[in-house]
Amino acid sequence: MSDWLWILFQLKGTERLTNFVLTPRDRGGGGKKPWGFSGIRLARGKYTMAFLTVQFTSEILKVGCSLNAILPQNTANFRAAYGGPPRRPFPVLWLFHGLSDDHSAWSRQTSIERYAYERGLAVIMPAVNRSFYTNMVAGAPYGEFIRQELPMIARSFFQLSEARADNFVAGLSMGGLGAFLQAMSAPESYAAAASLSGVLDPKERIARVRREAAEGDPAAEIFEQELGYILGDLDAIENHPDYLPTLAGRMALRQKQGLHVPEFYACCGTEDFLYEDNLVFRRQALELGLPLTYEEGPGGHDWVFWDRWIQRVIAWLPLKNS
Amino acid sequence: MSDWLWILFQLKGTERLTNFVLTPRDRGGGGKKPWGFSGIRLARGKYTMAFLTVQFTSEILKVGCSLNAILPQNTANFRAAYGGPPRRPFPVLWLFHGLSDDHSAWSRQTSIERYAYERGLAVIMPAVNRSFYTNMVAGAPYGEFIRQELPMIARSFFQLSEARADNFVAGLSMGGLGAFLQAMSAPESYAAAASLSGVLDPKERIARVRREAAEGDPAAEIFEQELGYILGDLDAIENHPDYLPTLAGRMALRQKQGLHVPEFYACCGTEDFLYEDNLVFRRQALELGLPLTYEEGPGGHDWVFWDRWIQRVIAWLPLKNS
Amino acid sequence: MSDWLWILFQLKGTERLTNFVLTPRDRGGGGKKPWGFSGIRLARGKYTMAFLTVQFTSEILKVGCSLNAILPQNTANFRAAYGGPPRRPFPVLWLFHGLSDDHSAWSRQTSIERYAYERGLAVIMPAVNRSFYTNMVAGAPYGEFIRQELPMIARSFFQLSEARADNFVAGLSMGGLGAFLQAMSAPESYAAAASLSGVLDPKERIARVRREAAEGDPAAEIFEQELGYILGDLDAIENHPDYLPTLAGRMALRQKQGLHVPEFYACCGTEDFLYEDNLVFRRQALELGLPLTYEEGPGGHDWVFWDRWIQRVIAWLPLKNS
Amino acid sequence: MSDWLWILFQLKGTERLTNFVLTPRDRGGGGKKPWGFSGIRLARGKYTMAFLTVQFTSEILKVGCSLNAILPQNTANFRAAYGGPPRRPFPVLWLFHGLSDDHSAWSRQTSIERYAYERGLAVIMPAVNRSFYTNMVAGAPYGEFIRQELPMIARSFFQLSEARADNFVAGLSMGGLGAFLQAMSAPESYAAAASLSGVLDPKERIARVRREAAEGDPAAEIFEQELGYILGDLDAIENHPDYLPTLAGRMALRQKQGLHVPEFYACCGTEDFLYEDNLVFRRQALELGLPLTYEEGPGGHDWVFWDRWIQRVIAWLPLKNS
Repeated sequence: MSDWLWILFQLKGTERLTNFVLTPRDRGGGGKKPWGFSGIRLARGKYTMAFLTVQFTSEILKVGCSLNAILPQNTANFRAAYGGPPRRPFPVLWLFHGLSDDHSAWSRQTSIERYAYERGLAVIMPAVNRSFYTNMVAGAPYGEFIRQELPMIARSFFQLSEARADNFVAGLSMGGLGAFLQAMSAPESYAAAASLSGVLDPKERIARVRREAAEGDPAAEIFEQELGYILGDLDAIENHPDYLPTLAGRMALRQKQGLHVPEFYACCGTEDFLYEDNLVFRRQALELGLPLTYEEGPGGHDWVFWDRWIQRVIAWLPLKNS
Repeated sequence: MSDWLWILFQLKGTERLTNFVLTPRDRGGGGKKPWGFSGIRLARGKYTMAFLTVQFTSEILKVGCSLNAILPQNTANFRAAYGGPPRRPFPVLWLFHGLSDDHSAWSRQTSIERYAYERGLAVIMPAVNRSFYTNMVAGAPYGEFIRQELPMIARSFFQLSEARADNFVAGLSMGGLGAFLQAMSAPESYAAAASLSGVLDPKERIARVRREAAEGDPAAEIFEQELGYILGDLDAIENHPDYLPTLAGRMALRQKQGLHVPEFYACCGTEDFLYEDNLVFRRQALELGLPLTYEEGPGGHDWVFWDRWIQRVIAWLPLKNS
Repeated sequence: MSDWLWILFQLKGTERLTNFVLTPRDRGGGGKKPWGFSGIRLARGKYTMAFLTVQFTSEILKVGCSLNAILPQNTANFRAAYGGPPRRPFPVLWLFHGLSDDHSAWSRQTSIERYAYERGLAVIMPAVNRSFYTNMVAGAPYGEFIRQELPMIARSFFQLSEARADNFVAGLSMGGLGAFLQAMSAPESYAAAASLSGVLDPKERIARVRREAAEGDPAAEIFEQELGYILGDLDAIENHPDYLPTLAGRMALRQKQGLHVPEFYACCGTEDFLYEDNLVFRRQALELGLPLTYEEGPGGHDWVFWDRWIQRVIAWLPLKNS
Repeated sequence: MSDWLWILFQLKGTERLTNFVLTPRDRGGGGKKPWGFSGIRLARGKYTMAFLTVQFTSEILKVGCSLNAILPQNTANFRAAYGGPPRRPFPVLWLFHGLSDDHSAWSRQTSIERYAYERGLAVIMPAVNRSFYTNMVAGAPYGEFIRQELPMIARSFFQLSEARADNFVAGLSMGGLGAFLQAMSAPESYAAAASLSGVLDPKERIARVRREAAEGDPAAEIFEQELGYILGDLDAIENHPDYLPTLAGRMALRQKQGLHVPEFYACCGTEDFLYEDNLVFRRQALELGLPLTYEEGPGGHDWVFWDRWIQRVIAWLPLKNS
């Protein structure tokens, strides 16, 4: 891209320029929140959020687990920024990590606490190992854990809203897929879901790993085997209960039936090895007429990109009166 | 070894043998809960509590603060032990540290999480530096922090009961004094308060430090100076708003007026340098007719004693239908 | 109660009464360290250890990991207790959790920091999920992680001794097996290994699960399947590279060859469902003439037992000039 | 500044444009490290650092303390980025918090772990309450703690280099002052010190608080009193042992004597209420001929500024062969 474009991009301008128009919601998604949150300038950087690390027991995984959490605090700064105390129970962003990360990745590699503050959001950051947020065929039922048990447990500890309008889920890479699976498995429960650099074309992803394995790449061979333990028969991935295109189709059906469908957001770096996969999903969503806001910009599959774009995701979230 | 010996061992019966009889409540305090929690044997050691570390902002102290928290989890183990899920909002034990400790001392030096599980208690462990749980004359208003702000903040994060019958406060050494100050400053808000090896004869404590300072003990000189920063004029300690005997007197007055007074518990090791101080407070309580359960046993001013006796304190707590 | 009884109580003498005599080392094991650490009474309960939680990346597991660590601090208390500063690099106890636990279990359910202080030991507490401390057949190579990568990583962060005489490993239940596997897989690297309520008769353990599964116990069916993912062909468990009896045999062989063999310690509660398994291992060790100290006492498979007996284990550890 | 300049600033270009030329070192400071660390692009965002939280005991403060630490890990990513493993013992950045923060502020409000990775730096983040990094007149000796005890303790835990060339100190606001005090009190021990939005004109700062207090601002009245507890006689602040201009003068003297003087860096936002104070210090440094790199850019006294400029500080640090 030209230097001039690059300059504009640095201005956090290009997201809008490269923003595909899919649906009214889409434009809304881009336009609803003017970049900069001018309404709450006053509070900027004067954080009053609490940061929590939690050790708990999962009965579904039958093992001790960890999660990190961020909770708004009712302080003068907060009230000055929002004209009132934090809404309670808190609206909550369920934020998912990538393949090689754990529950601590988002808080260590980005300023997530500061960004969540801009919207008065609680943030729950769980860990699912390398499970792809699904019930492993040869392993633990992480899908059940993340979809049923985690919300139940987090809500028993903290004052988190159970209202659909207050529940959002987002994640990066493997967690981008996880966020979409979470929302599509329980569309009644989530207002919106966002994927950053998500693994959104599982079939091609698997095919690529197998090609590389066939070509004798030892890392790919090991990964192909691991994917088998997680997903089962890789030749029949279309039949997997968490196969993304199938779930996306169901969302389209719900729409036709006038049932609630969460708003979706996907972004990817144009230098990301998953860029093509994201374009594929965008096309599928377009054909299905799903409410997807898609954005892209320069960047790779790394935290430099995610630290910038999680701000974009949080700005996009369709929060009511926040 | 003979069953009889083993039973004694399990009973830790020694404490009971050295138990002073003060008042009906006292016997009640000792007798109400048979040692061993036979009702919940099933669950023993099969913990299902969550452990949390919390970073938050205090507006009263104007600085970032830490606390540790323990919360019951609604698991099969818990239900098997109690015949039902944890009561929510949770009954809560506010647990205070000693002079040189911080919020992490209780969880690091004892098995507090395991003991709290025996009663289904949430535990909140704050940090107050070396402030003696009072508003420092030359320093920060820790009294206001611990009495007003901490409960407000902890209840905004967690599902903690605000009912008096569900609120208990305990502490060791400086924190034993702090626990009594907490309950006596807001008697309407606490069902009971417990002191382990507490600094319960402030006047004599100060006098001793000053004697040692006068004799040229440099550590005592520094400590005397520090006490001045915290408490102000040491010659007029009787006039300090948090002077324990004064507050104890007020509790006696409330009793005569038929107003609620929390139940009090104090224990001390017979080898503890604060042993005499505890006997003094016991005598004062006896004269005032305060509802005090006093117990003692072999031991010094250390965690070997506190790890054993916090179990005793938790067994004593007058929880309703737990 | 009589002083004599009280002394027994203080001594926790019961364990000694039930102490089996196996070998000279065994008596040594019991006798070497008089219970009570009279030498360091002074310091008792006056802890000066540091407690650390660590988030790190495992290249072998390809995922973010957690561990807890305890490190001695060079304080006046410590020097008063030991007549000098902590030895550095520190002697270290690698301490392993059980099947449903994680890295935080030992520090939450026991006073491990206080007990480690009695010997001036650093303690490293890793997490291995439910892997049985072995390379999972269908899963991650936890054996490689715990045996090769963890020591390398922990030593790159902390000042830990690499001398065999300074390295000890212990664990409970699944972690008891893990501790023995750790020491038997690298006998040159460990001075001693201890198992508390360990899974020490793997063949019978597996057989029992399969019997229960065959009888239609759904939990057992799931567990049998899980064991298959971890260990592979359960009918050929004798051929598993980490089959305990095989490794124990190798230790006996090393002994005959005059090569170093770590000292072993095993204890179990007489009410523990693994009690028989421990007696089986004790018999095997006796036949092989392995240097095993075996002890037992009243108690079940729970933290009440482990909190008491880890003190016993730490007292037994053959530390040089500590 | 013009929109066009603003665009350039977003490019992280304006720092250079608004860069004042003070000394050869100054230009060096700006030019030495080309922005972007092109040498280690490969690794960008692929973090392999460990994050540690530490609870320890300070004998000087006589209380339990917390710190956060970041340590490089020897991983394939790291070696690919640097052509080798992390240097050990690690070069270390001692990173100080502001007035109302604690040890967790930098890691929660910025991506410090990611930025430190770009230079292979260990980072130690202590907490000093609101002490201004000095020995409080009526309070604890935080100056002694941060200058003598903290380095001793951190080096006893971790493999940190004690070589001057490997030791750097930085901080924000109160911590900017603290960083300069740290380096100027032990110039032999630090290669460089950086202040972000630092309190660098203590006299004027105090005067302003007193003016506001005199005008009846209650918050200012309380703060004036607090400053008295910390600094003593505010009328004689010039005589305070940690009075910045005095220490700066000593550095100039050392320079004349040919003794080592650390390199200094200061930056401030042009909308910061401390902007004038920073210009004052810059003038003083200019007159004294101190090796100061001064930079400024748009921004206020908040984490949006500090998250951007700590990257600039880390890029500026004069690391040898990193």
